[in-house]
Amino acid sequence: MGQPSPWISEITTALCLVSILLVPLAVVGLAVLTNGLGKSRSAAHAMLASMCVIAVAALVYIAVGFSWEGFAGCGSHVVTVGGKPWDWIARQPFFLRGLELNGSPASLSVVLQLFAVGITAMIPLNAAADRWRLGPICASTAVLAGWTYPLFAHWVWGGGWLAQLGTIYGLGSGFLDTGGASTIHVVGGLTALSMVWILGPREGKYTPEGMPVGIPGHNLVNVVFGCLLAWAGWLGLNSAGAMLFGGAPPSGLVLVEINTTLCAAASALVAVVVTRLRFGRPDASIAGNGWVGGLVASSAATAMLRPAAAILIGLITGVLVALSVEWLELWLRVDDPGGAVSAHAVAGLWGLFAAGIFAGMGSHTAPGQWLAQLVGIATLIGFVLPLTYGLNWVLNRVLPYRVESDGEHQGMDLHELGAGAYPEFMIHSDDFIQR
Amino acid sequence: MGQPSPWISEITTALCLVSILLVPLAVVGLAVLTNGLGKSRSAAHAMLASMCVIAVAALVYIAVGFSWEGFAGCGSHVVTVGGKPWDWIARQPFFLRGLELNGSPASLSVVLQLFAVGITAMIPLNAAADRWRLGPICASTAVLAGWTYPLFAHWVWGGGWLAQLGTIYGLGSGFLDTGGASTIHVVGGLTALSMVWILGPREGKYTPEGMPVGIPGHNLVNVVFGCLLAWAGWLGLNSAGAMLFGGAPPSGLVLVEINTTLCAAASALVAVVVTRLRFGRPDASIAGNGWVGGLVASSAATAMLRPAAAILIGLITGVLVALSVEWLELWLRVDDPGGAVSAHAVAGLWGLFAAGIFAGMGSHTAPGQWLAQLVGIATLIGFVLPLTYGLNWVLNRVLPYRVESDGEHQGMDLHELGAGAYPEFMIHSDDFIQR
Amino acid sequence: MGQPSPWISEITTALCLVSILLVPLAVVGLAVLTNGLGKSRSAAHAMLASMCVIAVAALVYIAVGFSWEGFAGCGSHVVTVGGKPWDWIARQPFFLRGLELNGSPASLSVVLQLFAVGITAMIPLNAAADRWRLGPICASTAVLAGWTYPLFAHWVWGGGWLAQLGTIYGLGSGFLDTGGASTIHVVGGLTALSMVWILGPREGKYTPEGMPVGIPGHNLVNVVFGCLLAWAGWLGLNSAGAMLFGGAPPSGLVLVEINTTLCAAASALVAVVVTRLRFGRPDASIAGNGWVGGLVASSAATAMLRPAAAILIGLITGVLVALSVEWLELWLRVDDPGGAVSAHAVAGLWGLFAAGIFAGMGSHTAPGQWLAQLVGIATLIGFVLPLTYGLNWVLNRVLPYRVESDGEHQGMDLHELGAGAYPEFMIHSDDFIQR
Repeated sequence: MGQPSPWISEITTALCLVSILLVPLAVVGLAVLTNGLGKSRSAAHAMLASMCVIAVAALVYIAVGFSWEGFAGCGSHVVTVGGKPWDWIARQPFFLRGLELNGSPASLSVVLQLFAVGITAMIPLNAAADRWRLGPICASTAVLAGWTYPLFAHWVWGGGWLAQLGTIYGLGSGFLDTGGASTIHVVGGLTALSMVWILGPREGKYTPEGMPVGIPGHNLVNVVFGCLLAWAGWLGLNSAGAMLFGGAPPSGLVLVEINTTLCAAASALVAVVVTRLRFGRPDASIAGNGWVGGLVASSAATAMLRPAAAILIGLITGVLVALSVEWLELWLRVDDPGGAVSAHAVAGLWGLFAAGIFAGMGSHTAPGQWLAQLVGIATLIGFVLPLTYGLNWVLNRVLPYRVESDGEHQGMDLHELGAGAYPEFMIHSDDFIQR
Repeated sequence: MGQPSPWISEITTALCLVSILLVPLAVVGLAVLTNGLGKSRSAAHAMLASMCVIAVAALVYIAVGFSWEGFAGCGSHVVTVGGKPWDWIARQPFFLRGLELNGSPASLSVVLQLFAVGITAMIPLNAAADRWRLGPICASTAVLAGWTYPLFAHWVWGGGWLAQLGTIYGLGSGFLDTGGASTIHVVGGLTALSMVWILGPREGKYTPEGMPVGIPGHNLVNVVFGCLLAWAGWLGLNSAGAMLFGGAPPSGLVLVEINTTLCAAASALVAVVVTRLRFGRPDASIAGNGWVGGLVASSAATAMLRPAAAILIGLITGVLVALSVEWLELWLRVDDPGGAVSAHAVAGLWGLFAAGIFAGMGSHTAPGQWLAQLVGIATLIGFVLPLTYGLNWVLNRVLPYRVESDGEHQGMDLHELGAGAYPEFMIHSDDFIQR
Repeated sequence: MGQPSPWISEITTALCLVSILLVPLAVVGLAVLTNGLGKSRSAAHAMLASMCVIAVAALVYIAVGFSWEGFAGCGSHVVTVGGKPWDWIARQPFFLRGLELNGSPASLSVVLQLFAVGITAMIPLNAAADRWRLGPICASTAVLAGWTYPLFAHWVWGGGWLAQLGTIYGLGSGFLDTGGASTIHVVGGLTALSMVWILGPREGKYTPEGMPVGIPGHNLVNVVFGCLLAWAGWLGLNSAGAMLFGGAPPSGLVLVEINTTLCAAASALVAVVVTRLRFGRPDASIAGNGWVGGLVASSAATAMLRPAAAILIGLITGVLVALSVEWLELWLRVDDPGGAVSAHAVAGLWGLFAAGIFAGMGSHTAPGQWLAQLVGIATLIGFVLPLTYGLNWVLNRVLPYRVESDGEHQGMDLHELGAGAYPEFMIHSDDFIQR
């Protein structure tokens, strides 16, 4: 995996580039979704923060991030561990120097990730809505886009050790993730989990007895609209990834579009059914998270699944997302307004595991493929989570993340921007909302 | 028509696939438009229903729908009627088995319709806003995507009898509809009409004397935004259709983009003028419906029109949409909050008829083309409308479609989801709205 | 510049066409942005006006506009001035007659501008929000799309005298603007400036002492959302322009996407920092304008910049936009609710100047390139501004632009459309807003 062929045809290059151009729609969709799930008194802040996150992530990734990530076949640092080479980080010049921006797979992967790293960076924002300050948001994004993301992405997409699990340790074809379920979503989702732990729950989220209180998003229309817009972007994301990191030919994209859509569709419908069964009524927010979770889970190996497998993966994703939202809130005190941990980390991990079982359309039926997936999953949980938690824990000491209590009560908009998102609309008083 | 050449060039395939990837924007645009035309107390329900409709339509179409539709040249059931073969339904295996998903025109048409069937299914939702329950919405969508849509689509795009009107009965080149004016829009629009009749008007829509009362949409910004976003998707839809079902070469897309845009533009402007003349003031909702109607009317033969013809078709579409909204409401007691019957059925039927007259850029100048169009139009009104009405009438007996009266008063959001779309915004009381 | 090669490869044609298909997203994004920056009581009017502007611009440009613009190598009127030929206007038939719509660069440029002229026409709308009547909006758009835009576009993209500055006067490679910084944005921005002067400031914008009063936009979520959506469209716009008017090969698009994104990112972040430094708090509206300004400034020569130069251009754009919004308001009494003059005219002029300095990746390192840019900038300020001001001044005499005072107080929605955009939401009274 992660080994793009050194040369791809002119038409594949063009198709890949165009697919990449759809990815900003996923970024925009997630921004709108995040916004709708937060409170109205933080809505302008959330949008401005999304824009800043996209901007910082793009600048830092181009400036330094890509240097650590590199591409398959680029120069990298290799340590010998137990007699086997362990390729852990690329060594490319900063600012893309030395990389020909000529439509080569390496240069296309830069463009893809110029946008995708913005998705990764928006996931923690999603979870930390209504209480994270703008300065620390930018600083944390810089660390994520400049170090955590590219380090792990090197291992998967940059020819690093996870990609080499097949050739060196004989585990299938190496860790398989063509669309970014791990690099983009689990890395983002585990960072979101760290952020939630570091920031703590919003005021009023838990009763003195520790029971979670529902705080509804302020605009459910935008929540679902964001999900649907993200779908349009995801079709491009999964297509580009399948070509760049899975070697799919243009004809393989037919399957990508079908599987991506079916997986999201199945997951959203199951989330509707599960919330109906548990609460008596379908929950639109959780259905939206189910839809996004289905998109995420489809990303791992979307070009290598049969449509029936994509539907099955989606069905299970919907159950996992709907239940984990509740479970995380209740047992791990995860106050995640955007459901980011469930929709990105939980769904992503499941998608990676499922890829090991179901990806049988290509060359990935080799024995041990599921073991390669488990190694990747273990790395995410055992290494990336502590890493991203630790980096943000340190950063939080230097630059306190959480807004002061009266700022939270006032709302991030008035507190940090001095102006609300909807100055003309009448809003119910806080008492109503937090009743 | 409906006879894609057995082989299309690599570049046409790529361009067709990319065009298809824009179609979700039309789906999303229509969802937002629908939402804005409904009431605020049903807004979350409308969005969740849109997502469910897209999901159910995609799953059912892939599972069984495509099997009945097939593609030109696939195996089908042919009955001999009056000594002539009558090809009425395809016989393909379920779940796309046996279909190579390799970029062939047949496989591309699956992807196109994976999205397009969602458009069709959203049209009745549009008309039935504020009173249709979620369960029946999903069931009705399954019937539409699993039977009504693919049956008629087989006739037009799957090599069925309407496509063969030219070769067998000598009517021009057979029924012409490259972009889905009939298959997507008129089928959806006639289903919307059925739904309106089955559900009946919203409470308070008609005075005791039977006069209609205007109930404005709750968010006109989203109405127009949805129209414009749909335009971006439609450029892809008409392009893909022209290539797949009209044999247009890549160079033909220049004309597609120009005609699609001019037709929508002319129609919207005329709707502005007509509403201004009739009511003294332009109506933004009807202008939006004019825009969508122009897109719909352009779909029938967009690659085969001169720009001047596209403008002329648009001008007449605008008049038809603006007047039919009023006329349907007044004379047929059609309470269609989204204007779906006008913008999709009326505009689509006119576009199909106009294609018979104006489509003279390609090989469609053969005599009898307009007769082929009339046969298709008669089939839609004389067969598809009773079929879709009948199926939904039966389904309504089993699973009552309409929400109870107190649920309608309360709003679909609170009644079916237990939560509103905009919990923080203050909303005027009902008395104000229905005054 | 403006000299497309007579023939471009099939794959370049396809890629160019697809890039063009993304441009409507920029149009839609700007419409949403504009809307959010206006008042709620003019929100439906603003959206309907955007749709009308897009429609009128498309129809008029196709009907007559393109005839004056033409394309490089088409027949044109040439006057001899000082012994040198001065090519000032094309002479093509109306309604695209005689132009083969076959994917040639000339036909692709028609499609690109079919959408881009809508962007140009929406810029004055942006600045004249909340007080410009619908009829004059359409009339002014017709003049812009039918005369002012195509005249200047002929000079730059249609083989006119600015494009020939290199071959005839030896100034570099002629005036360089591949993505429309001048043709689309500065022309639109200077028209916006004219409109602001003709209409005058909104009531209550200036205190009796002449100090400007902040009137916040009514929906900052839509403001930032519109900016992000516009980004997706701009990637297509700059790509298509680079291929059509800069001769960039498909592989050159990698750089286009990177530079466009980095320039916008840098500009938005700087606008955040500058507003924070000046006002103590970041301003989301101005950050949004910074983002758009960065997109505009990147357009002049996006395929010919190094990423570091794109970042530098963006940094300066952010400063210019943030300061010029304030400066124009205070010193020139420019009441521009959308910040259109800053984001389009100021950023565009700076981008054109910067192109002369930094565009060194292609053949544009010839001496005198910066002088060619200055000639273009002088033409915009010295000729286009008086022209567009004069035309609108005359039109305003015939068809008064500004709504009556009580209409402005009532809001454009109720006054011109008879219905508000948000009939169910409760809005603060005017006193609150204009306090």
